[in-house]
Amino acid sequence: MPKQLFFTAGPSQIYPSLETHIKSAMEAQVMSMSHRGKEFEKLYGDIDFWLKKLLGIPEDYHVLFFSSATEIWERLIQNCVERSSFHFVNGAFGERFRWTSAMLGRNALSVVVPDGTSFDYGSVDVPDEAEMLCFTHNESSTGVMLRVADIHAMAKRYPDKLVAVDAVSSMPYPDFDYEILDAVYFSVQKGFGLPAGLGVLILSPRAFETSLLLKNKGISIGSYHSFPVMVDAAAKRQTVETPNVFALYLFARVLEDFNAFGIDAIRQHTDTKARLLYEFFESDPEFNPAVHGIRDRSATLVVVNVGGRAKQFVELAAHAGYEIGYGYADRKQDQIRIANFPAHSVADMEGLIGALTAM
Amino acid sequence: MPKQLFFTAGPSQIYPSLETHIKSAMEAQVMSMSHRGKEFEKLYGDIDFWLKKLLGIPEDYHVLFFSSATEIWERLIQNCVERSSFHFVNGAFGERFRWTSAMLGRNALSVVVPDGTSFDYGSVDVPDEAEMLCFTHNESSTGVMLRVADIHAMAKRYPDKLVAVDAVSSMPYPDFDYEILDAVYFSVQKGFGLPAGLGVLILSPRAFETSLLLKNKGISIGSYHSFPVMVDAAAKRQTVETPNVFALYLFARVLEDFNAFGIDAIRQHTDTKARLLYEFFESDPEFNPAVHGIRDRSATLVVVNVGGRAKQFVELAAHAGYEIGYGYADRKQDQIRIANFPAHSVADMEGLIGALTAM
Repeated sequence: MPKQLFFTAGPSQIYPSLETHIKSAMEAQVMSMSHRGKEFEKLYGDIDFWLKKLLGIPEDYHVLFFSSATEIWERLIQNCVERSSFHFVNGAFGERFRWTSAMLGRNALSVVVPDGTSFDYGSVDVPDEAEMLCFTHNESSTGVMLRVADIHAMAKRYPDKLVAVDAVSSMPYPDFDYEILDAVYFSVQKGFGLPAGLGVLILSPRAFETSLLLKNKGISIGSYHSFPVMVDAAAKRQTVETPNVFALYLFARVLEDFNAFGIDAIRQHTDTKARLLYEFFESDPEFNPAVHGIRDRSATLVVVNVGGRAKQFVELAAHAGYEIGYGYADRKQDQIRIANFPAHSVADMEGLIGALTAM
Repeated sequence: MPKQLFFTAGPSQIYPSLETHIKSAMEAQVMSMSHRGKEFEKLYGDIDFWLKKLLGIPEDYHVLFFSSATEIWERLIQNCVERSSFHFVNGAFGERFRWTSAMLGRNALSVVVPDGTSFDYGSVDVPDEAEMLCFTHNESSTGVMLRVADIHAMAKRYPDKLVAVDAVSSMPYPDFDYEILDAVYFSVQKGFGLPAGLGVLILSPRAFETSLLLKNKGISIGSYHSFPVMVDAAAKRQTVETPNVFALYLFARVLEDFNAFGIDAIRQHTDTKARLLYEFFESDPEFNPAVHGIRDRSATLVVVNVGGRAKQFVELAAHAGYEIGYGYADRKQDQIRIANFPAHSVADMEGLIGALTAM
């Protein structure tokens, strides 16, 4: 059976080296590896080392593993927010983080702008009571990517508040200044080209201290995935529960590959392919980029208006060997969504554009 | 490199068919499969069907997926216990469930008996306030397996209380009467011979109703992994978050294999191998089964006293190609632990016994 090439938002195309890494995992019997042994400790250390090197993360930040970014939403609120969080909501994923905070009994404040747009930061006045600012760097329901400089500016404007950034569908593309951010997190089935089932949180010492303060106040911050319990285990290069060891092994190997390729090259490669996509969708009258503000357009997830013909395009693309995504929720028929991750080559992107041109 | 045979408590030996299933997963591009499509819905349906068929689970019970059994401890308390839980503690894993309840601010009551022993149920008087009885069917820190009939009897003695059974390291061996149990759960890296990173909960309609009652009382029962949110998604054969799709695929395939083999055959096979192990350890003066009560001895995890020589045995066994486990925590040097799962054949067990005999 000929294989399809996946441009879906995630799970998406697996990174080209993955099949080799899976074979080496089988050979090394990684699936039977104890999570309490030296081999696992080395694996955790490898990930910590290569991730910090790749992204320029300060040495004293914590790298913690969860089952999904959805779980990380919950853990961040439980561990770092006593009463109020503040959410920048411009789509479904930002709203789900806000909902998570509300479900946990917090006062989940927000600024909401229409889908497909970004924020007028100058007009946003964050209430004093808000303990954490919550951004969705890349809103994959709409194709809007926030500008890193804007997130940094807000972090500097509110230095006493924690800043959490959902980079689920953009990592490793964004060039964050981790020193002024407290929680940056992602899941590996997007930009890292891995199977789903692993969320990664980069946590500042300040956010960790906050979890200790809440705990000392007698607030329940959870059990096995409370930050103090996790950080204690991480100090020994262990996890509290039996983790997804196989995914961690593959993550370590892909991080080595990304470091060999180089973060600058990955970012330029992403920009090159994004330019190809937007130029095509701007020029072909069948298509129209969904995000009007050119500076708001995502480099890693391109959303395109197709006026009710999404099914037609998705099916024709699939027939040509390319799996692309439908629009999100009620835009299912009116938009298509195309991921642009490191696993996609320039040739892949040209092939997809060729197939879409022919329709 | 010659492969080792793993008798560790889990992660352990992978089921013999697994390599084939991994190849078919790669061929079918399971790692890129959308968790919002028909293919995933069929996968969820397959697991629900084959698991219920294998274990005789009533049709109206819910089959829900988590990242680990450790997570399930937390979700059970959050969703089903308002004030008090009652824990039967005879080792480290029962104690961790009790700790989880306490960390979540509940009154975590317990009866505690010495490690290596079971309970005198006649003398246990569960307080009226306890909402849930919590059993560890197989305490893998000590090698004590509770008798299913005793758990059933306690469930019948306290018909108004929910009954939760941790079957992490015994499933699919125990023959539970699900009609009188409310939560039976396990993780797949033990008896199912799969890679770690997936916990499975079999939940009664009554336990699910309890989560709704708590929610309607205004109690926070969590967010994405609260039972009402999960059951809503499960009704559409979906999960709330992007799950570990690859593990779910492998789980479905191994469930098919287990059904083909037959649950009676699996249980007899387990008994046969357990008998081989205990007979050997009873007869060889170098060893001594750690659990004195013959009826309390686990069929799926055999713990043996070796008087300070665990390192010697573990290393010699490894040299002969067999990975066995150390004793738990402070019994590390005085005990060895040997798993007896469906992935282990009678010939494997005879080979291991031969290697241990030669020492």
